[in-house]
Amino acid sequence: AAHGARKMEDYGRFLALLASALLVGFVSVILSLVWVFHYREGLSWDGGPAEFNWHPVLIITGFVFIQGIAIIVYRLPWTWKCSKLLMKFIHAGLNTIAMILAIVSMVAVFEFHNAKNIPNMYSLHSWIGLTAVIFYSLQLFLGFAVFLLPFAPVRLRVALMPIHVYSGLTIFATVIATALMGITEKLIFALKNPAYSASPPEATLVNCLGLLLVIFGSLILWMASRPHWKRPPAENAKILRPIGATPEGPEVESTMANSSNADKSDLRSNTEAARKQNIKFDEAGQRSTM
Amino acid sequence: AAHGARKMEDYGRFLALLASALLVGFVSVILSLVWVFHYREGLSWDGGPAEFNWHPVLIITGFVFIQGIAIIVYRLPWTWKCSKLLMKFIHAGLNTIAMILAIVSMVAVFEFHNAKNIPNMYSLHSWIGLTAVIFYSLQLFLGFAVFLLPFAPVRLRVALMPIHVYSGLTIFATVIATALMGITEKLIFALKNPAYSASPPEATLVNCLGLLLVIFGSLILWMASRPHWKRPPAENAKILRPIGATPEGPEVESTMANSSNADKSDLRSNTEAARKQNIKFDEAGQRSTM
Repeated sequence: AAHGARKMEDYGRFLALLASALLVGFVSVILSLVWVFHYREGLSWDGGPAEFNWHPVLIITGFVFIQGIAIIVYRLPWTWKCSKLLMKFIHAGLNTIAMILAIVSMVAVFEFHNAKNIPNMYSLHSWIGLTAVIFYSLQLFLGFAVFLLPFAPVRLRVALMPIHVYSGLTIFATVIATALMGITEKLIFALKNPAYSASPPEATLVNCLGLLLVIFGSLILWMASRPHWKRPPAENAKILRPIGATPEGPEVESTMANSSNADKSDLRSNTEAARKQNIKFDEAGQRSTM
Repeated sequence: AAHGARKMEDYGRFLALLASALLVGFVSVILSLVWVFHYREGLSWDGGPAEFNWHPVLIITGFVFIQGIAIIVYRLPWTWKCSKLLMKFIHAGLNTIAMILAIVSMVAVFEFHNAKNIPNMYSLHSWIGLTAVIFYSLQLFLGFAVFLLPFAPVRLRVALMPIHVYSGLTIFATVIATALMGITEKLIFALKNPAYSASPPEATLVNCLGLLLVIFGSLILWMASRPHWKRPPAENAKILRPIGATPEGPEVESTMANSSNADKSDLRSNTEAARKQNIKFDEAGQRSTM
C-alpha cells in the first residue's frame, strides 16, 4: 500500500510538472502575440515589420513549445497503452510541424531583411539559429530513417538512441538560447525612444517572455531526464538482450526499440538482471491504468 | 581480448573528447583576450571600457571553462585511484573559483555602468545572468553542506544527487546562453562604424567565439551524461542498498555517495542486481590502471 501511495505521489508530481510546462509554454505563446500586436505592427506577409513579427511568434510556438511537447510525448502515462509505433508517429509529426514553422519563420526574416536592405546572416543569433535548424532537420531525417522505418537493424537503433536523445535535448537547449539572443537583438533595435535601457513596459514584458522560455526549457529537460518517467517496454516484452544479440521478428524489434529508449545501463546488463528489470517495468506498466 | 579492446577504444574516445573540450575551451579564452586587447581597450580597473572588458574575459575563463572542467572532473579515469573526498574538494574548489570570477566580472560591469551612468539590470542578459549566479551560489552552498560535510544522512544525499546533477547541467547551459546574449549586446553596442551588420573582422571573430562556447558546452554535456564514463564506486564497495535501507558508518556512507553518482536505476534495483553491478564496476575500475 505504501508502495502504491509512493507511485501515486510520483504520478501526481509528473502531472504537476506537465501542467506547469503547458502553462508556461502557453503563456509564452500568448506573450509573443501580445508583444507583436500590442507593442509592434501585428502580423501580415507584406515584406514589412509585420512580416518580421511572424519570426518570434512562429519560433516560440513551433520551435520552442511544440518541440518541447514532442520531446516529452513518450512520457505521458496515458499513452503507454498506445502502440509504440503510434507514439513514434506523433513524436515525428510534432517535430515535423515544429521544423516547418521554424523554416517559415526564417523565410519571414529573410524577406523582411531583403525588402529593407538589411544584410542576412551577420549576427551570432543567425549563425547559431541556422546551425540549429540544419541539425534539427538532420536529426528528424535520421530519426525517421532509423527509428520509424522498419529497415534499420536493432544494433544500429540501440547504438544511435543515446545520440538521438542527446542531440535532441542539446538542439532544444540551443534553440532556446538562440531565442534569447533574438529577443536581445530585437529589443535593442526596436526600442529607440525610450530605449531598452530605460526599461519601457515592452522591455519588461519581453524580458519576462525570455525568462519563461528558460523555465519552459528547464521543466522539459527535467521531465525528459528522469529515468523512472520513461515509457515502459511492451507488456509482453521478451527479456532484454545484451547489445551483441540478434533478435528476430518485428515484435522483438519493437521491444528492443523500447528498451533502447529505457536506461542504457539495462542494455549492458546481463539477461538475469534484465529479467528482473522487466518485472519492475511490468509493475510500472500498471501506472498507465491509474 | 575483444572485451578489453572495446574498453581501450572507449577510453581513447573519452580522451579524444576531453582533448577537444580542453582545446575549444582554451581557444575560447584566447579569443576573448584577442577581442579585448586587439579590438577593444584592453584590461584595467579604472571604471572605463577596459574595466568592462574583464566581464567577458572572466566569464569565459571562470563561468564557462572552469565550470565545465569542474563538471567532468569525476570522469577523468586517472583520478579514480584518488579518494572520493579529494575529488569532491577539487570539484567544489573549481566551482568556488568559477563563482568568484563570475562575481568579480559582475562587479566590473556594475562599476563601468555606474561610471558612465548606464542603467543596471535592464536587459534580459542581466536578468538571466544574475539568476544564474544566484542559483550557482545556492547550488555550491547546498552541495557543500550535503555532499562534502559529513553530516547529511545518506537518504538525503541519495535524494538530492539527481537534483544536484540536473541543476548543475541546467545552470551551465544557462550560463552559456547568457554569454551568447552578452556577446550579442556588446557587438551591437560597440560596433558603430562599421556596424555589426557590416560584418567587420571583430564581428566575425566574436561570432566564432560564440560558436566555440556552444561546442564547448555540447562536449561537456556529452561527457557528463554518458553513464559508462562515471567514476566507479570504491573498490572494496559494500553491495549497494535499496533507497529504504539505512547503512552505518562513514565507509558505507562514502560508498552510497558514489552510488548516488552512478545510475539512479541502480539505486532502485534489488541487492542481487546491485552485486552484479558492482562486479561490473570493479571491472571498469581496471580502466583507471590502463
